[in-house]
Amino acid sequence: MLFKFQKHLSENLPFLREKKLLLAISGGIDSIVLAQLLRQSGYAVSLAHCNFNLRGSESDGDEQFVRNFAAENNLEVFVTHFDTERFAQDNKLSIQLAARQLRYIWFHQLLEENNLDFILTAHHLDDNLETFLINFTRGTGLEGLTGIPVQNDKIVRPLLKFSREEIQNFASENKIEWREDSSNASDKYLRNKLRHDIVPILKSLNSSFLNSFQDTLSHLNQSKSLAEDASVLVYKQVVTEKENQKFFRLFDLKRLPNYEAYLFEWLRPFGFTAWKDISNLTEAQSGKFILSDKFRLLKDRDFLILEPILEKDERIYEIEDDAGIDFPIKLKLETVFQSDKTSNPAAIYVDKEKLKFPLTVRKWQEGDYFCPAGIDGKKKVSKYFKDEKFSLSEKENTWLLVSDQEIVWIIGKRQDRRFYSKNNTTPILKIALL
Amino acid sequence: MLFKFQKHLSENLPFLREKKLLLAISGGIDSIVLAQLLRQSGYAVSLAHCNFNLRGSESDGDEQFVRNFAAENNLEVFVTHFDTERFAQDNKLSIQLAARQLRYIWFHQLLEENNLDFILTAHHLDDNLETFLINFTRGTGLEGLTGIPVQNDKIVRPLLKFSREEIQNFASENKIEWREDSSNASDKYLRNKLRHDIVPILKSLNSSFLNSFQDTLSHLNQSKSLAEDASVLVYKQVVTEKENQKFFRLFDLKRLPNYEAYLFEWLRPFGFTAWKDISNLTEAQSGKFILSDKFRLLKDRDFLILEPILEKDERIYEIEDDAGIDFPIKLKLETVFQSDKTSNPAAIYVDKEKLKFPLTVRKWQEGDYFCPAGIDGKKKVSKYFKDEKFSLSEKENTWLLVSDQEIVWIIGKRQDRRFYSKNNTTPILKIALL
Repeated sequence: MLFKFQKHLSENLPFLREKKLLLAISGGIDSIVLAQLLRQSGYAVSLAHCNFNLRGSESDGDEQFVRNFAAENNLEVFVTHFDTERFAQDNKLSIQLAARQLRYIWFHQLLEENNLDFILTAHHLDDNLETFLINFTRGTGLEGLTGIPVQNDKIVRPLLKFSREEIQNFASENKIEWREDSSNASDKYLRNKLRHDIVPILKSLNSSFLNSFQDTLSHLNQSKSLAEDASVLVYKQVVTEKENQKFFRLFDLKRLPNYEAYLFEWLRPFGFTAWKDISNLTEAQSGKFILSDKFRLLKDRDFLILEPILEKDERIYEIEDDAGIDFPIKLKLETVFQSDKTSNPAAIYVDKEKLKFPLTVRKWQEGDYFCPAGIDGKKKVSKYFKDEKFSLSEKENTWLLVSDQEIVWIIGKRQDRRFYSKNNTTPILKIALL
Repeated sequence: MLFKFQKHLSENLPFLREKKLLLAISGGIDSIVLAQLLRQSGYAVSLAHCNFNLRGSESDGDEQFVRNFAAENNLEVFVTHFDTERFAQDNKLSIQLAARQLRYIWFHQLLEENNLDFILTAHHLDDNLETFLINFTRGTGLEGLTGIPVQNDKIVRPLLKFSREEIQNFASENKIEWREDSSNASDKYLRNKLRHDIVPILKSLNSSFLNSFQDTLSHLNQSKSLAEDASVLVYKQVVTEKENQKFFRLFDLKRLPNYEAYLFEWLRPFGFTAWKDISNLTEAQSGKFILSDKFRLLKDRDFLILEPILEKDERIYEIEDDAGIDFPIKLKLETVFQSDKTSNPAAIYVDKEKLKFPLTVRKWQEGDYFCPAGIDGKKKVSKYFKDEKFSLSEKENTWLLVSDQEIVWIIGKRQDRRFYSKNNTTPILKIALL
């Protein structure tokens, strides 16, 4: 295996030569074998071992084993301890995810502090196969069937083309010792079941199954890269971005026979996975929306609009006197002697004596109504929004000026006629949105 | 299951209602159950049974069973006999492929002759799962993992969302009888092994595995449609088609980080599968090429050129006299009194007395040389082609005019100076390419 390993590295990962490498080492067979292969091939490698303190004396035994291994082989070793359970609890993560985050943050720190170039891990082909099967068992998309890559950025996996069997053979031929890995993987049961019950059958049905599997992975990765290209190309054609909103033009989108596939691709990163709901929304009436954790997808006439869910500002801001306010919006109050008749939606003129101070500025609430200027009777604010075809985010961004529970102004939009100044004998207040 | 079946049809295949359906029926459990479900749901269905004569009396037993089933249920039935082995032999096909071709040709004929609308087959979800696993076991790309579709064109598969178990339960609950299917599938051993050894484990690891598998299929189909879009979009950007040649512009292509994935997508339909060879060819020197059964992929300066392999015409065509020839090219011979000095590559003037009739027209052969007009000495024709940067297909499409083994003209390209007419005392022959 040593020769094949060296050939693989010089052919496929030539850039590792002359670089300073940091090997993530657990003490298990895979990482110990990789350390030996690298050492025997003359690569400049340091070791990094995480003690996650999850298995008591066993964890400490692993640490000691790695320290000894490093000393015997004259290799630099970095060791760190993590309070993994606490970190998981504090950050609301699974133990596995917590351990993963902790170790990669630390590895990158080590890289930086010690001027090292790459992090190496000992993932091998059977790991990829098992992950493929786990994802397949649970149901997945293409991204679940493409395996981990040989390299992403600073992380390189030089054993990814090698099978577990090759690694085991190398270990036994070279009388290499390692620590039995009592893994913490959450999928341990599933992984073992697949490893012991399914993989041997697959291998028996095709004597070069692992080679075929590598071909499969490589084909699927190619298809994935094509699908990603299409996603980007078509996105540019049918989506407009404006501030923090994305407008999906349904007319253009729906000309594509597979437009649902695109929508799904684009919306998944925003936490939308309810496939049928998205599909139904494209046909729904304006104003319908679906929510993910942090985003809203709104049907608005010829668009789907994707926007972050802003926390609705429930606070009430008081205007004490003629000075106006600067926050959350800028209103200037000014006593004038005559209304300006030019129609300017950014300013209203009201009979000052009809107002009760302090005025308040707030968002609309269920049940709000007002007496819109220009028409008889009163109208619910929600009805006004609907008639004016306000989008959800427009509604939520609209402020009301209120005097003693009565709406004076849907700010910037429509005045309430109850506060009209009827004659010039009482003081007129000009309220302007700046 | 009847209710679920009816719901499925009205929701997902509403167009089948009121249509005349032709059900492909083997007599096995799947097709018999589908026939019952359709009949009980009030669909207008006729039956089509193929006797492939591959299993002697068993085949005849199947036929009789289907005839009886049709009679008992008052259904129209079409039956045909095939000499499958002979068809396979005559057409150099496997028995499976032969049977498949025979039956679909016949089904489509029946559709036409009897004014029927759709062919129905009884493929179910476990069939799709087994095919997925077979392809996965052998190594495949995305196309091998996307299953057969519910519909392509005239063929519809109404049971594709149903499991084998549902079908079996329906059969036993309704005391339906069927013929045990001793399938001829070439993958029978593999299929059975997967069905009995692997699928049960997968189902035990995830109690809704078949649902997850359906999701997987649907996601993979979406990704496939995106990958196909990218393939078409990028093809338009980097490929020029000219007659029967396709020019892949390497400069544009290689700006794509995943250009190899595109090349592979585009070239696979032409029988190119040697992945590394294609990749190497993009870096190879001009003139290198690789072959598939019927196509050649040629590196030619900044292009890869894909072209059909034309059978090289080895024949020799004789020109008996001044009349010229019409085939394989049109040459007109004419005695004139003076050379026309305007340079016209489509015509030459030669000393008629230097020619030996019959002249011949043929393609170039290894070892051919000539004395090119305008330079001293002689030159190999192959060297001339190379200097003039002829592509392989240009070389093969070039005709030579030959007089007694001596090349008179590389037709349309370059004259041989040995046949120049030197004075006006001997007759001049004008030879023109029309």
